[in-house]
Amino acid sequence: MAAATLGANLSCAVPHGPGDRVQLGHGSGGKLSAALLKQCFLPHLGNPILAQLGDGAVVSVEAGEVVVSTDSFVVSPLVFPGGDIGSLAVHGSLNDLAMMGAEPRWLTAGFIIEEGLTLAELDRIVQSMGAAARAAGIPVITGDTKVVERGKGDGLFINTTGIGVRYAGARPGPDRACPGDAVLVSGPIGRHGMAIMAARGSLGLEGNLESDSACLWPLVRGLVDQLGDELHVLRDPTRGGIASALNEIAAASRVGVVLEDGLLPIPAEVNAACEMLGLDPLYVANEGIFVVFCPEPLATEALRVLRAQPLGGQAALVGRVVADHPGFVVLETALGAQRVVDLLPGDQLPRIC
Amino acid sequence: MAAATLGANLSCAVPHGPGDRVQLGHGSGGKLSAALLKQCFLPHLGNPILAQLGDGAVVSVEAGEVVVSTDSFVVSPLVFPGGDIGSLAVHGSLNDLAMMGAEPRWLTAGFIIEEGLTLAELDRIVQSMGAAARAAGIPVITGDTKVVERGKGDGLFINTTGIGVRYAGARPGPDRACPGDAVLVSGPIGRHGMAIMAARGSLGLEGNLESDSACLWPLVRGLVDQLGDELHVLRDPTRGGIASALNEIAAASRVGVVLEDGLLPIPAEVNAACEMLGLDPLYVANEGIFVVFCPEPLATEALRVLRAQPLGGQAALVGRVVADHPGFVVLETALGAQRVVDLLPGDQLPRIC
Repeated sequence: MAAATLGANLSCAVPHGPGDRVQLGHGSGGKLSAALLKQCFLPHLGNPILAQLGDGAVVSVEAGEVVVSTDSFVVSPLVFPGGDIGSLAVHGSLNDLAMMGAEPRWLTAGFIIEEGLTLAELDRIVQSMGAAARAAGIPVITGDTKVVERGKGDGLFINTTGIGVRYAGARPGPDRACPGDAVLVSGPIGRHGMAIMAARGSLGLEGNLESDSACLWPLVRGLVDQLGDELHVLRDPTRGGIASALNEIAAASRVGVVLEDGLLPIPAEVNAACEMLGLDPLYVANEGIFVVFCPEPLATEALRVLRAQPLGGQAALVGRVVADHPGFVVLETALGAQRVVDLLPGDQLPRIC
Repeated sequence: MAAATLGANLSCAVPHGPGDRVQLGHGSGGKLSAALLKQCFLPHLGNPILAQLGDGAVVSVEAGEVVVSTDSFVVSPLVFPGGDIGSLAVHGSLNDLAMMGAEPRWLTAGFIIEEGLTLAELDRIVQSMGAAARAAGIPVITGDTKVVERGKGDGLFINTTGIGVRYAGARPGPDRACPGDAVLVSGPIGRHGMAIMAARGSLGLEGNLESDSACLWPLVRGLVDQLGDELHVLRDPTRGGIASALNEIAAASRVGVVLEDGLLPIPAEVNAACEMLGLDPLYVANEGIFVVFCPEPLATEALRVLRAQPLGGQAALVGRVVADHPGFVVLETALGAQRVVDLLPGDQLPRIC
């Protein structure tokens, strides 16, 4: 296919034919690469910095602490209820910055495309990625595209690196949990993982499950503005779910965490799907919620701040930090029974992000 | 395999058994992930920033221009004469920064591992990556690991994002070539691409071909210190080779470029291998050289600076910039004949980096 034809087919106004697919040559650095860049990536991701098309991007920073986070996304399927690999890749790296108390500023994007991916699907995902980045107000400033042969990839993998700056007053860290802290979650748990399972056709109840994938920075900023340095820990419980996130925090801070079973905001459809598959919602990945540790007397104020934004509307107090059983997370039932919530040895749900 | 066993097998002192392979669970965010991190990634890549193991890394910068570059590496095979995907991923992103006149400071690393890769091979590659980063003096400050099912990847893909700061006096850009500029290359051309072809077993003369993969920043710094703002263009001719790099510069600067055939430093073994495969060395990828455009009166000084370091020992003047035929690169033979060196439509050598 000539570059000119490719260009025409990739423009948003012209539907893609079923025969238009990514070829190895699109990763060559030659004319096909240039066409893909100009016809797909720049229209959806374009901004003045990206448009310079150098070997990289130049941005200005004030003196201070720069925060950097990188993530590769290999989620399967590429498109799922509530999002796709493009929006997920944006939210994922921005959220990692937010969890460190950093205001996101810039994103990079690296694409590894499997030969044969339709240009229509690539276009749809890059469009979604651009929309998520614009909604968050964060430009994709530089990128890279590689193509691998059919059977050597799985449609599309995306790496994003997020770069931000420390937000004034924010100093959260996984090692700052203290006995007496309250443990909050910003929204209902288990939605992303179960939406992915549903999209894989593993369930009979696809209808109600939707990923929670979202940019968490506006919620975090609200909390930092209100609680400042009293915001001890922020963590988005992605791979491994709430259980893994809390275990990491308990270990890093050498404290115990007690979760109250009845307080966990688990949507009915997540519970039902987990029961059907024999999964524990505490280990299911999330992409649009986070856990907050702050001194107990500030918990009410933190909940008020979270609930003031739609994304935090279902924020809840779910537990507390204790000096007992340091390094361990314990789930307490209404009847007072306790069980240890351990790290899983391996994977409950592979390729979830 | 229990995490403890995995840990023992991954330690450098203990050889890996043939049965020790990456499993899906190593990408889960659970115990196996933690073991892989602690037993393979941290020993080879470790530094005080990476060791904090947060959602990202925090570094301090002075006010000014920060330069960011990202690249995914999908080279096949993973190990080749002169390097491997690990050292290549370090050099590639550092070189992109150097080409923008930026002093490299930090790297991120994202790994996409195919289930079944042996832990011994992963360990070897991460070790090589760590050695390359240490040799360049640049820490890997944050990273990410994902595992995909057998047949959904190709052993290992690595994304690196390089972050640097503008080096005082450096302002190179692909749009700054001027008629009257000399065109130099810092070393012999075509070595990386042909080493990869040899490693694929496509040739009968594997013995002499070795990738040029190297960190170019020390050479670039020497040039900037000497030529400052007179250093008009720097570009590392990776995918698409010298031909593609010069075409991009000619287009961006709206100038013509004339290469003199007899001046191009093409090693005899590269020439022989290219002839055997029907390839043009001008389109073969390089990973350890760069092209330099500077005013012709400064060319001798630039060559002196390049040749003062072993990596630049074979630096050569290869052409000139003209006002004629803007946007086109022309190769001139000793007899005065000219042919246009165009961009290739697609790929000469896929999966070269």
